[in-house]
Amino acid sequence: MSTLTRLPELVINPNILAMEYAVRGPIPQRAAALRGQGRSTIPCNIGNPQALGQPPLAYFRQLLGLVEVPGRIARERRLNALWQAGRLDGVEADDLVNESLLARAEDYLRQLESGMGAYTDSTGPVFVREAIAAFIDRRDGADGRGRPFADPGQIFLTDGASEAARSIIEMLVADPSDGIMIPIPQYPLYSATIRKVGGVQVDYYLDEEAGWSLDRAELEASLAAARAQGVRVKAIVAINPGNPTGAILDQAGVDEIVDFAAENGLLIIADEVYQENVYGARFVSFAQRVGDRPVPLVSLHSISKGFVGECGHRGGYMEIRNPPPVAGGTQNLVQVATKQASVALCSNTVGQCLTWLMVNPPEAGSEAHRRYVAERQQILDDLHAKATMIRAAFDQMAGVECFGRTGAMYLFPRLGRLPDGSSDFDYCMQLLETTGLTTVNGSGFGQRPGSQHLRIAFLPPKPMLEAVLPAWIDFHRSYVGG
Amino acid sequence: MSTLTRLPELVINPNILAMEYAVRGPIPQRAAALRGQGRSTIPCNIGNPQALGQPPLAYFRQLLGLVEVPGRIARERRLNALWQAGRLDGVEADDLVNESLLARAEDYLRQLESGMGAYTDSTGPVFVREAIAAFIDRRDGADGRGRPFADPGQIFLTDGASEAARSIIEMLVADPSDGIMIPIPQYPLYSATIRKVGGVQVDYYLDEEAGWSLDRAELEASLAAARAQGVRVKAIVAINPGNPTGAILDQAGVDEIVDFAAENGLLIIADEVYQENVYGARFVSFAQRVGDRPVPLVSLHSISKGFVGECGHRGGYMEIRNPPPVAGGTQNLVQVATKQASVALCSNTVGQCLTWLMVNPPEAGSEAHRRYVAERQQILDDLHAKATMIRAAFDQMAGVECFGRTGAMYLFPRLGRLPDGSSDFDYCMQLLETTGLTTVNGSGFGQRPGSQHLRIAFLPPKPMLEAVLPAWIDFHRSYVGG
Repeated sequence: MSTLTRLPELVINPNILAMEYAVRGPIPQRAAALRGQGRSTIPCNIGNPQALGQPPLAYFRQLLGLVEVPGRIARERRLNALWQAGRLDGVEADDLVNESLLARAEDYLRQLESGMGAYTDSTGPVFVREAIAAFIDRRDGADGRGRPFADPGQIFLTDGASEAARSIIEMLVADPSDGIMIPIPQYPLYSATIRKVGGVQVDYYLDEEAGWSLDRAELEASLAAARAQGVRVKAIVAINPGNPTGAILDQAGVDEIVDFAAENGLLIIADEVYQENVYGARFVSFAQRVGDRPVPLVSLHSISKGFVGECGHRGGYMEIRNPPPVAGGTQNLVQVATKQASVALCSNTVGQCLTWLMVNPPEAGSEAHRRYVAERQQILDDLHAKATMIRAAFDQMAGVECFGRTGAMYLFPRLGRLPDGSSDFDYCMQLLETTGLTTVNGSGFGQRPGSQHLRIAFLPPKPMLEAVLPAWIDFHRSYVGG
Repeated sequence: MSTLTRLPELVINPNILAMEYAVRGPIPQRAAALRGQGRSTIPCNIGNPQALGQPPLAYFRQLLGLVEVPGRIARERRLNALWQAGRLDGVEADDLVNESLLARAEDYLRQLESGMGAYTDSTGPVFVREAIAAFIDRRDGADGRGRPFADPGQIFLTDGASEAARSIIEMLVADPSDGIMIPIPQYPLYSATIRKVGGVQVDYYLDEEAGWSLDRAELEASLAAARAQGVRVKAIVAINPGNPTGAILDQAGVDEIVDFAAENGLLIIADEVYQENVYGARFVSFAQRVGDRPVPLVSLHSISKGFVGECGHRGGYMEIRNPPPVAGGTQNLVQVATKQASVALCSNTVGQCLTWLMVNPPEAGSEAHRRYVAERQQILDDLHAKATMIRAAFDQMAGVECFGRTGAMYLFPRLGRLPDGSSDFDYCMQLLETTGLTTVNGSGFGQRPGSQHLRIAFLPPKPMLEAVLPAWIDFHRSYVGG
């Protein structure tokens, strides 16, 4: 670091200074310092499955390898032809790329037109947006009547869901009295972004002991209190399945938010990036339950979660339903979002390609589809089994309770009574120092005053969990003085 | 588009509503509509070389194809061994991936640790940042004394330079009286971002007839006028080579900005994404000329431009030199920028990998290096030849003058006297309708009142230029009534 002594002080945007993001905060920073000293740590502070050994889907990566390398499709075709002709001595069938995958890669490049190295349309290639619309329609049983079809013109490819959330919140907060309702506990991207743009965070509490469910009276009370303070509440964020809670909303829970938004003129921001992480439960989308009601809805999805887990590739999409007209102009929200996207030029083409694969997997009945389904099942089964192992360890920790069924990639146990003067932050920091396990303190997500939690991503390989969970149980006993 | 009739109006952030970005504005939108009607257009509105047929560097893409596909390196090694043993009948040497490239891909994955699908550190993998620092030091002849070394801890990987520019401007604008100096004409990312965050755009004019050079008196006058109006000017943007002008600053020009910033306590934002696009001239970096003076500098680079041209992959970096301490805290600008980056999790891993290749090309003396150098030379020679063809066409257009030497990827000719009531916007729109050539009106970048320009990216293949330039000359004659 250069010497700073002669440099004048710089006044920085106070909203950015005040912003907090615990998922990459002091505890993970301490973990990085420990790794720098040669200690091994287990990064459960963030939903980053491939960092903990979850394999990428083979088909997705093989296709990427083909579309990225000019001439590669033709080369693999030549190898296949030589193999068929018996001229490749010692090459196994597994070493070849099958013709259906080659055809799919060729199809992608043909539709993309300009190759992977060119900017696309600001909102993403139209054929990718059409594939996303078709995926949403299949998922939700759209029929064009009570269940309207998704419109590719209202879908935006993004560099992950975080970018989408930032973009919508930046548009919504027009002055410092504008507020956005967020669940508590919440994923701190929302609190950080509202803070960054200088809006008001309006909290509504989830009911922990009822499995982190929603309560209409709580929503009404939160809204009324904000309005009484002069806050212009514009939107409500719902995270389903929940982060950090892992809770999964049933149809009644989704309807409750839709009804509440409809009656109070709010836009819904539905963070649905964990929609595949339901482990046997049913995912109900906000788009489906909005149906043909005139409720503005922005829903987010991502390639980072589910069973795809391609966090590093930064891909996802945002769908705007029922875009409201913009006050004082002739535009609607889709048109403003399009201009906003255009300044960033476009999302990255690899994230776009993986999003296309996510919504458009190999054709049913093909060998590629069989392999894809097997990999998906293995990944989801593993995740569920690991969550179950960790929950079982909680049973051996005095005072620790974990409510709700398992969803998303996280458990958010309540820690019970900690020693006087000790917080969940202290607990997590000490847990890291003692065991290497890197978690995030509940206060980083928000929680009822007086309660203490932590969030753990249930991603480590089972042998790693088998080693660290007993150490955690010991740590807990010693920490709480059991 | 859904019916909007029953939806209440939404009040949108007025700064976002007011933001303009001509590079993706009405003229390119009209071009898209024409393409939808089956017309062919030539997209010269944006520096997107691969969309106009510029090939990607083979080595870069081959390495990507290897690091993305698990098992691919081992497979290529097996093929190589079988070929050596004479067991691949009909396979040519060109169909194989050479061992040095395989070793390089393996090295990348080994240093990355978690594979391409995991989030990296928020600021990017440390080994990539070290490679960037080494590149900067080689480029600038750093010696650790009068020419300090770059610090990997002050380098941030980004999703292209646009993200970096947004990030720094968001941090700098703390209230509506904060101003940032930008050149006129300028790349409208700067005006749009300053507008979006509610700051003050402080214009300084470049001297067109002196080849778009800088004038110290103009800088002083611009700053004095802004301060007289109560604007707290915090930074000055320099774009070198220029966009849209293509002008290249010589050492004296860079020094002029550094001296001006030093004397007035300003931070320099140096947009150096076109540093390879100098066509025989010498690029002088701001970092080199700042040397060991305590001038805060943020410099931007990208994989989108130069001869790499990987726009769609969204990669680049930002280096902060001499980070100023932040008023009212214990942090400096690097620490705040790191927190800001952490909320976005990380830049995309493919952009990171291509950035690593850009700063760390194949080893001199290798066959891969010979091919890389040949591809680079071909791309840069082609760009220069195409710029020369377009400039020659200007000589046949009455009143059109193009000042300065050729740099970046753009020409920014002055259109001379247009018919009464006609603007450069009208000219560009009509040029599009008549010839399919998609350019951007000078008013989208800013220009001296009363002057008219357009920006054209000199990217179309030569046969396309040979066809369209005569049509443009005819159009011009008819438009200006020659």
